[in-house]
Amino acid sequence: MTNTAIVLRERPKSDIDDQTFAIETREIPALGVGDIQVDIEYISLDPAMRPWVHDKPNYLPPVEIGAVMRAGAVGTITASNDKRLNPGDKVQGMFGAQSSYVGPGSIATKLDTTNAPIEDYLGGLGGTGLAAYFGLLKVGELRKGDCVLVSAAAGAVGHIVVQIAKLKGAYVVGIAGGPDKCKRVVDVLGADACIDYKSESVPERLPGLFPKGIDVYFDNVGGETLEAALDNLATGARIVVSGAIGEYNNLDNVHGPRNYLNLIGPGARMQGLLNMHWAEHFDDARADLSNWSSKGELAFLNQIETGIETFPQVVQMLFAGKNVGKLMLKV
Amino acid sequence: MTNTAIVLRERPKSDIDDQTFAIETREIPALGVGDIQVDIEYISLDPAMRPWVHDKPNYLPPVEIGAVMRAGAVGTITASNDKRLNPGDKVQGMFGAQSSYVGPGSIATKLDTTNAPIEDYLGGLGGTGLAAYFGLLKVGELRKGDCVLVSAAAGAVGHIVVQIAKLKGAYVVGIAGGPDKCKRVVDVLGADACIDYKSESVPERLPGLFPKGIDVYFDNVGGETLEAALDNLATGARIVVSGAIGEYNNLDNVHGPRNYLNLIGPGARMQGLLNMHWAEHFDDARADLSNWSSKGELAFLNQIETGIETFPQVVQMLFAGKNVGKLMLKV
Repeated sequence: MTNTAIVLRERPKSDIDDQTFAIETREIPALGVGDIQVDIEYISLDPAMRPWVHDKPNYLPPVEIGAVMRAGAVGTITASNDKRLNPGDKVQGMFGAQSSYVGPGSIATKLDTTNAPIEDYLGGLGGTGLAAYFGLLKVGELRKGDCVLVSAAAGAVGHIVVQIAKLKGAYVVGIAGGPDKCKRVVDVLGADACIDYKSESVPERLPGLFPKGIDVYFDNVGGETLEAALDNLATGARIVVSGAIGEYNNLDNVHGPRNYLNLIGPGARMQGLLNMHWAEHFDDARADLSNWSSKGELAFLNQIETGIETFPQVVQMLFAGKNVGKLMLKV
Repeated sequence: MTNTAIVLRERPKSDIDDQTFAIETREIPALGVGDIQVDIEYISLDPAMRPWVHDKPNYLPPVEIGAVMRAGAVGTITASNDKRLNPGDKVQGMFGAQSSYVGPGSIATKLDTTNAPIEDYLGGLGGTGLAAYFGLLKVGELRKGDCVLVSAAAGAVGHIVVQIAKLKGAYVVGIAGGPDKCKRVVDVLGADACIDYKSESVPERLPGLFPKGIDVYFDNVGGETLEAALDNLATGARIVVSGAIGEYNNLDNVHGPRNYLNLIGPGARMQGLLNMHWAEHFDDARADLSNWSSKGELAFLNQIETGIETFPQVVQMLFAGKNVGKLMLKV
């Protein structure tokens, strides 16, 4: 009875690399009061993992050296000292990058897997889908007919943003890297256009694609793409600050948008997105996402890699832009 | 019958200097259809004048070389081909930095100077007061008990922001340059504290002054002060992007806030302030400002310099931080 755990070996100076994480085999401890044991089936891989291993607190404290890597996960309860939960229950929680979780049951949420595969609770029905939903509809205050720009449009959050925006009657342009991703953004996700930033200039293409300006920019990348969006805002525009994957390898010297004063003319705003601020709407959001998915109006794309021992390499795919949809690891 | 006009001689590479403007004496032209002639009494001096003489459009097109400098002004009509307006009427408008305006009457707003001196319509009852009002109450969505930070707190907009925030029951900290200004911010304007950025470190003082974080930051300066505020935000914080006087001498390479990702954790926002987006509320705002002023709850501080020919030097006082309250020129 052992646990295979991914622990933080050293803080990366730039990108996460092969030295960042170590794999350890640990004894599974006895359960304390209120504890549960979870056999973890899928582990979520998220861009936020880069800031989590930075030495300064982000919205969460840094992962300590030698600690199990912070990660969302889903799995099945095998033992429980928590009255709410029973062996066999499917659960979700920040169980960490490991094969077995033993700890407080209070961090676990019970899942209904009748109509959705368990892995969707890391993707479209999990934090990823909620981020797309709240980012676009609450922070972005999407209105029908809005002109929407989405960066990392083939990514975990972006691919859901594109689809919800189309569902809601918006004009949608994605930004993605490479012709294959761009083709999927248009053909599969339904965007009106896609800019391939690897072969095209985003600043040069935006004015033609947004003659009346951008109403909502859902920003997952930061840097010069954010500046290009700031140069093309419509009156009352909303920029959803979801992340800045392009800046995460240089967190002590992030590229701040030099043209942020462009917010003044159109009375536009940039607003940070964090799901927990919308907790009172979680049930409504999950119901909408689940409903759209079951009607075939919203597709959750999952890219599933295999084997807990591949975690140190698989996490790097996020920052190399090698995933389409939600990247996760099947334990 | 001549007009003394301040014209743009050359675009400054950095700060506005003695070479930026020239003084010209011009004939006063005959009035066309719909035109008015205004004897200008006071000219407004605004930080936005620096971006207006930049070679790239801001929210308004650049002032052309050789053209009369754009400026808000108040004065008395001496001749009118506009049926709405009569000789003797007091008016306000973007009449330019000159002693006499001849042009369309449509840009003029008639003033009621029964209860307020005409110059207040450039200050507390003009765009400056409206910027403070809309910035704090609409963009900043001030709530009772909020903790508010105001930069350039002794300046034209800042000194009104401080007072309205106190009127509304907020805790208010100002930032100003020098002990004299700071003393006025506390003793005259009523702020709870003031940071003298010339002798104190803003980043070091903010955590102690805002143990629960900043709810509203009214930003008139940008740069490292904005970054310090971003490091101390409360959940749901609102940053009012009013201007960035500290960056105006380097508009092609403004210091973008490197820690703008700090918006994510607290779900905070930065939003641009431009009065015209709140035009439907102009009457309410002016009524409130006028009412508070007449009850003695709000003081409009005006710093009045004299002589149209001093414009090229007086405008530089804004960027050297040499004004307290609203800087204007008596023609």
